[in-house]
Amino acid sequence: MAICLTADIVVFTFTDAVLKVLLVRRKKPPHQGRMALPGGFVSEKEPLEKAALRELKEETGLRLGAAEQLGSFGDPRRDPRGRIVSVAHLALVAAAPAPRAGSNASQAAWLPVKRLPPLAFDHKHIISSALERLRDKLDYSTAGFQLLSQKFSLPELETLYETVLDRKLDKRNFRKKMALLGILKPLNEWRRTGRKPARLYRFMPKKFEKLKEEGILFPF
Amino acid sequence: MAICLTADIVVFTFTDAVLKVLLVRRKKPPHQGRMALPGGFVSEKEPLEKAALRELKEETGLRLGAAEQLGSFGDPRRDPRGRIVSVAHLALVAAAPAPRAGSNASQAAWLPVKRLPPLAFDHKHIISSALERLRDKLDYSTAGFQLLSQKFSLPELETLYETVLDRKLDKRNFRKKMALLGILKPLNEWRRTGRKPARLYRFMPKKFEKLKEEGILFPF
Repeated sequence: MAICLTADIVVFTFTDAVLKVLLVRRKKPPHQGRMALPGGFVSEKEPLEKAALRELKEETGLRLGAAEQLGSFGDPRRDPRGRIVSVAHLALVAAAPAPRAGSNASQAAWLPVKRLPPLAFDHKHIISSALERLRDKLDYSTAGFQLLSQKFSLPELETLYETVLDRKLDKRNFRKKMALLGILKPLNEWRRTGRKPARLYRFMPKKFEKLKEEGILFPF
Repeated sequence: MAICLTADIVVFTFTDAVLKVLLVRRKKPPHQGRMALPGGFVSEKEPLEKAALRELKEETGLRLGAAEQLGSFGDPRRDPRGRIVSVAHLALVAAAPAPRAGSNASQAAWLPVKRLPPLAFDHKHIISSALERLRDKLDYSTAGFQLLSQKFSLPELETLYETVLDRKLDKRNFRKKMALLGILKPLNEWRRTGRKPARLYRFMPKKFEKLKEEGILFPF
């Protein structure tokens, strides 16, 4: 029963049309110098979610109010120090605040999910699980929109869906479906991203909830 | 870091038109004599899912090939012995095999989810979480049908949905939707349950998968 418990956290954001995850560089062995998820040992009297949020704050400076549990990763060989089970958490943030390294981390940075360096432990696997969860969530929740800033353009939204679903979407179809769903409110604002200015939109969560109740989901 | 880890398991089945969960009576303190989920301490070199399935077999005689992870329950006060975190698992079985008590259990029985006795630890809470997961799954997976025997009547199916969703469904609407979805194959068999014999059906998983791909889900 000499099993130790850590709480780790996958924080995703979507900026500059790229899905990113918050990572820290390990100061200590094992895997010293490698990038890893923020996280660490759960204190004896500490709830799991609290431990994850505390480690996140200590190692990156990012303060979040809540994280959902992603799952426990308990492969007996995942940590060279012995049997250490990780309870992984997931959080989505819209604007990516600049992280600052602290405690056991010598660096903290948002890295593109699609171009990750070699990571410590099974953290690549944990991030894959988190991505899968995000993919599922995109179907039946407002998760996708949590990653975007309040105002976004259709090209940004498309790129987000394409990144998370990991496949090319038909642009015209995507826009037609979005229009049919009627969950986006067009604003009288434009932003220049590509060649021409793109109109900005706002997400209408209440409309989305109503569609969900009617059983109409996101068939992308 | 003196944290211990247990693996517990919620096994649901649906028989005699009642949703049931598999429980065991504890032989030892704490909560000696109370009913509890099958489960116990994870061995040092044992994967979490394996631990849950091993405990299930030891305490109830039920052998399952797999269980999905439900989540970790880590409230610091959930166990009077100290900090013990439970990694809870979930499994759905169709025909409820008669359990036989073993190892740390003096009794093993399928009990109706709606009329549970006082349970050990936070096991009532864990069962609620499992029910919630099952409710979500009913929307986007074949989970509901995993709980039914291969052949079932429409009244049985209705009762299953009503139990899991915890609300009355309109009988005619339910049948109309099921017919529209076309995922049930009528058989030339009838079973007497109520006043008159009810026709038996079989579930067509492939049709269901196809509907899912098209984004047509279960709006009950």
